[in-house]
Amino acid sequence: SPPPCTDFDVAYFHSYAHVGIHEEMIKDRARTETYREAIMQHQNLIQGKVVVDVGCGTGILSIFCAQAGAKRVYAVDASDIAVQAKEVVKANGLSDKVIVLHGRVEDVEIDEEVDVIISEWMGYMLLYESMLGSVITARDRWLKPGGLILPSHATLYMAPISHPDRYSHSIDFWRNVYGIDMSAMMQLAKQCAFEEPSVESISGENVLTWPEVVKHIDCQTIKIQELDSVTARYKFKSMMRAPMHGFAFWFDVEFSGPASSPAKTTSATSVASVSSSMSLFGEGNQKKRSNPSDALVLSTSPEAPPTHWQQAIVYFYDPIDVEQDQVIEGSVTLSQSKENRRFMNIHLEYSSAGRSFVKESVMR
Amino acid sequence: SPPPCTDFDVAYFHSYAHVGIHEEMIKDRARTETYREAIMQHQNLIQGKVVVDVGCGTGILSIFCAQAGAKRVYAVDASDIAVQAKEVVKANGLSDKVIVLHGRVEDVEIDEEVDVIISEWMGYMLLYESMLGSVITARDRWLKPGGLILPSHATLYMAPISHPDRYSHSIDFWRNVYGIDMSAMMQLAKQCAFEEPSVESISGENVLTWPEVVKHIDCQTIKIQELDSVTARYKFKSMMRAPMHGFAFWFDVEFSGPASSPAKTTSATSVASVSSSMSLFGEGNQKKRSNPSDALVLSTSPEAPPTHWQQAIVYFYDPIDVEQDQVIEGSVTLSQSKENRRFMNIHLEYSSAGRSFVKESVMR
Repeated sequence: SPPPCTDFDVAYFHSYAHVGIHEEMIKDRARTETYREAIMQHQNLIQGKVVVDVGCGTGILSIFCAQAGAKRVYAVDASDIAVQAKEVVKANGLSDKVIVLHGRVEDVEIDEEVDVIISEWMGYMLLYESMLGSVITARDRWLKPGGLILPSHATLYMAPISHPDRYSHSIDFWRNVYGIDMSAMMQLAKQCAFEEPSVESISGENVLTWPEVVKHIDCQTIKIQELDSVTARYKFKSMMRAPMHGFAFWFDVEFSGPASSPAKTTSATSVASVSSSMSLFGEGNQKKRSNPSDALVLSTSPEAPPTHWQQAIVYFYDPIDVEQDQVIEGSVTLSQSKENRRFMNIHLEYSSAGRSFVKESVMR
Repeated sequence: SPPPCTDFDVAYFHSYAHVGIHEEMIKDRARTETYREAIMQHQNLIQGKVVVDVGCGTGILSIFCAQAGAKRVYAVDASDIAVQAKEVVKANGLSDKVIVLHGRVEDVEIDEEVDVIISEWMGYMLLYESMLGSVITARDRWLKPGGLILPSHATLYMAPISHPDRYSHSIDFWRNVYGIDMSAMMQLAKQCAFEEPSVESISGENVLTWPEVVKHIDCQTIKIQELDSVTARYKFKSMMRAPMHGFAFWFDVEFSGPASSPAKTTSATSVASVSSSMSLFGEGNQKKRSNPSDALVLSTSPEAPPTHWQQAIVYFYDPIDVEQDQVIEGSVTLSQSKENRRFMNIHLEYSSAGRSFVKESVMR
């Protein structure tokens, strides 16, 4: 039997009834247009088929699927926004094709197998408030063997960054405030500014070296237990001498059909990103890759077109000066908070030049 | 005996320990530099005198007063930021001059009369989360007869506005979303966008006619009971034909010495703002007026340099088309919420072209 719906869930679902959030997501053109393009690119697998849209929101992706010729789309959302989705579907004369189900994927009933799952489930830092668990549930309950999941893969990256402007703006600022030395504020300012991860936009110039993969997810095979806690070891070699202020995290998702082997796609991707090293970001640099055999990618990297996800930054309280080629290594663990299961704990260990540090933070 | 400190107070005081808020306020140059200028302009009344800074925050205004030659400054703040203020004062070698008192003005003890009260007490829409009540308490407990209060006066204004861009951005947007008619979202979008007052920056071009005064406050004479509920009737005549989207509220504060009669200052002000009608905003247009006998003014009007207060807008759910010279009249009542005494209820009645409306909203 499914886990019960907690108070946290209720507050979360209610918050998604606020239209501003949906407005922001829909207005994120990189997001919405890439999804539409992915649907059109897989039209041959959608036409005449049954689709589930997990966390449908206002229903826009479900309508795209109907426009692509889906026989039936089940648009599922636990939030009150489902009431609106139903109105939108009706106003577009699609009530016979798009069936809005107001409830959790664990609780609603769909009396047939489905060919396609589509979902825009990604949260900040990929996994924060993500709906991937609901996608897994939907897959295990309804997806036909060999069915299509869009997106098919997701990858979370991390890289060390230097961001002196941000540091001076909030911290060094206190050294001279209208001529007054207020540096006594700096310790508290660091705590307030850098205790929690920060969702903000950085540029490629802030990044000190190539990113490493924290977690690669194949949506066909990922198990819910894998998401309870994600740990990755990393080892970076700084490409320049700079003060290092912390680590940036970002992700991309791929939209590839079930025919292409995930292993092959992944390996092709890493080769591409290393060999086309004009940029640190390889594939992430272009939303659509030039090679037509490659999958469509929605990237939230610092060099991709900006999205509402921006990047997630874990700042150190104090910068570390790194030399060119200096090694920074350690590990990161992302896990569900016990305080509130929608919060994410970030446990970061890092060593550089013989010194070791630990930074604990919570994304609330 | 003073009213007890409620849970709401505790949460409020705690929130002010967050450095970001103080950083934003200090970086508001119009605010901080006008206060510094007001202190320097009244240096003859501060030199060798005793000052109380109500809600001192990081202590910056207290230090300005010490720099202006104050004999002693009591810097009072109930928030934990007072701990920081003490450190800042100490680091500047001013611990013998600036005495930081961590507590509410109702609770702390000052064993002498004071010559000057300075306070940056103004909240959004002047009265939201304002500390004016604390200024009144400090005045009644400690200020010598004829003492200086900076600022000396405050005035809340309102004016009808037209803001088609804002309306189309959040509401009309839904008419055509990537080719899909999502106008079924519009009713909820209006509710979400316009139910509560919105703090945002508008420009002078959005304003349909001269502002009217909602409340004028003389800090020497205002009584705390007057703030429980503020009601004003208004009557505007639109200077143009336009869709009217709501009302904007903003304020200014004056820094005038106790010598100048408040009545005289106020009347001079209104004459000036009407006669110099190149702008709709008269005095608000320039931070410092050219006439040296006039008081220094910190204005948050749409035509003044931007401040962190911006303007507070109460939007209608649907615009009203007004003709040139059409009369818009009604009343506004601002009152403390019973739900949380730091919330403010805004009850707005308006009639135009024979139709009457009521809009209730809460600033949380």
